[in-house]
Amino acid sequence: MAGVAHAFVPGHVTGFFTTHTDADPTKTGSQGGGVCLSDGVTVTVERASESAVRLNGEPIDIEAVTRVLDTLQVNATVSGETSLPLGSGFGVSGALALGTAFAANIVFGRQLSENELTTIAHGAEVQAGTGLGDVVAQARGGIPIRLEPGGPQHNYLDGIPATARVEYYVLGSLSTDDVLGGDTTNITTAGKAALSQVVNEPTLTSFMQASRTFSRESGLLTEDVQSVISDVAEAGGDAAMAMLGETVFALGTGLSDAGYDPAICEIHHPGAVVLQSDEQ
Amino acid sequence: MAGVAHAFVPGHVTGFFTTHTDADPTKTGSQGGGVCLSDGVTVTVERASESAVRLNGEPIDIEAVTRVLDTLQVNATVSGETSLPLGSGFGVSGALALGTAFAANIVFGRQLSENELTTIAHGAEVQAGTGLGDVVAQARGGIPIRLEPGGPQHNYLDGIPATARVEYYVLGSLSTDDVLGGDTTNITTAGKAALSQVVNEPTLTSFMQASRTFSRESGLLTEDVQSVISDVAEAGGDAAMAMLGETVFALGTGLSDAGYDPAICEIHHPGAVVLQSDEQ
Repeated sequence: MAGVAHAFVPGHVTGFFTTHTDADPTKTGSQGGGVCLSDGVTVTVERASESAVRLNGEPIDIEAVTRVLDTLQVNATVSGETSLPLGSGFGVSGALALGTAFAANIVFGRQLSENELTTIAHGAEVQAGTGLGDVVAQARGGIPIRLEPGGPQHNYLDGIPATARVEYYVLGSLSTDDVLGGDTTNITTAGKAALSQVVNEPTLTSFMQASRTFSRESGLLTEDVQSVISDVAEAGGDAAMAMLGETVFALGTGLSDAGYDPAICEIHHPGAVVLQSDEQ
Repeated sequence: MAGVAHAFVPGHVTGFFTTHTDADPTKTGSQGGGVCLSDGVTVTVERASESAVRLNGEPIDIEAVTRVLDTLQVNATVSGETSLPLGSGFGVSGALALGTAFAANIVFGRQLSENELTTIAHGAEVQAGTGLGDVVAQARGGIPIRLEPGGPQHNYLDGIPATARVEYYVLGSLSTDDVLGGDTTNITTAGKAALSQVVNEPTLTSFMQASRTFSRESGLLTEDVQSVISDVAEAGGDAAMAMLGETVFALGTGLSDAGYDPAICEIHHPGAVVLQSDEQ
């Protein structure tokens, strides 16, 4: 057992999704599609007499993380470092939960598999109400297509075989809990249509188109986000809204070409990884 | 559609495996465990009037690659570049087949998903008799545990949440076709025992132990390989035999510490990836 361990979990931008609720949190989740980002969260877990969570050095309460620690029956200090904002559609809470599971597994010698750790983090995120599909996508990496909802025992994932530079621009935040706690009928109808389109044509171009249509038909598109997406289109680029956040992401140099000053990263293929430890 | 596309596929060292034959090649395959390596094969696919395959600049006949091109109904020049030897347990033929599928999908605008491309390459490798589990492991990356045999529609994969430096030392080659064409009862019995051990304790230490036991009980261990593994153990390291090749792989600095001059790489987590293209 190591005294401290580190894990990296990519950010994940969802382009479209459906919602599925079940009494079993590991069967609850979403279908959908998204992009894993090289901008993510580095999570450090260390033994402690009392658990505490910090994000970029500041104390923070992230229910999904607390639930992971409770499930593993451990007390630990969890420190996350990221350039991504919380609540803007990058799956930061999911990344913290999954990174906590991966790193705590090493520190406390729990000897769980990747699927088991992903199941724990997915269940924690679902029960906290902060996400439905980020965790399983972040565990996989690349451009995950979630064909079936739920944790690794229940879902079925595929991927778009592509890679790209990704730019993103954050206008504000949206509360996942508020959106998922309301009527999600329109979301699921629009999400199923988008999924069908991407399954028929699993390319990045088709993914971006499906995501734009989803954001309109689900009713989640805000005026400010629409305005940025239009600017990118006018400049010849390809952008969409990150669910659930007031955030625009674009392929290549889409946002830069439209005159914005975006953050720049790449699609990240490895998924969640343990970075180092004494014993693995 | 791009004129040329590139893909990278990690090498894959199998530690233990079972064999399962089915009339459907996508249901044929193996359970088992292995390690994906940062040493792999970069595959370039280019349109051509007649198909041709080269490995490190030399013309070569790889049936699994020809079968992938036939399935996609394309003529192409396939060029593989690798530092790994063929026939020594690194999954080079599987990497060539999978890389061909990923890159040809871009060049010829086939719009197939990662699972569909993996299914095609897995089926091609099975029909060529050159492998049962490398392709699905190489598509996943990391330290894949193949809990069920077959392609992505039928198998079930998990992984060991760890990473490590890996050293390897090649003594000679073994013919996969000869081994898999003979009586595989002992292999499958030993493979199931090893899988059970690693499922109970999904750590790298347990994986190496299970792999060593498998190599003895399956009858595949050669005297020369055993001698190197013993040298590494005497130097305090952890080594096992790469299936199917006369190759030893070790964690950390195991082979170096025992006085060998091994090749050095890392565990590779992304799995097969498209490197670049005009349109993805």
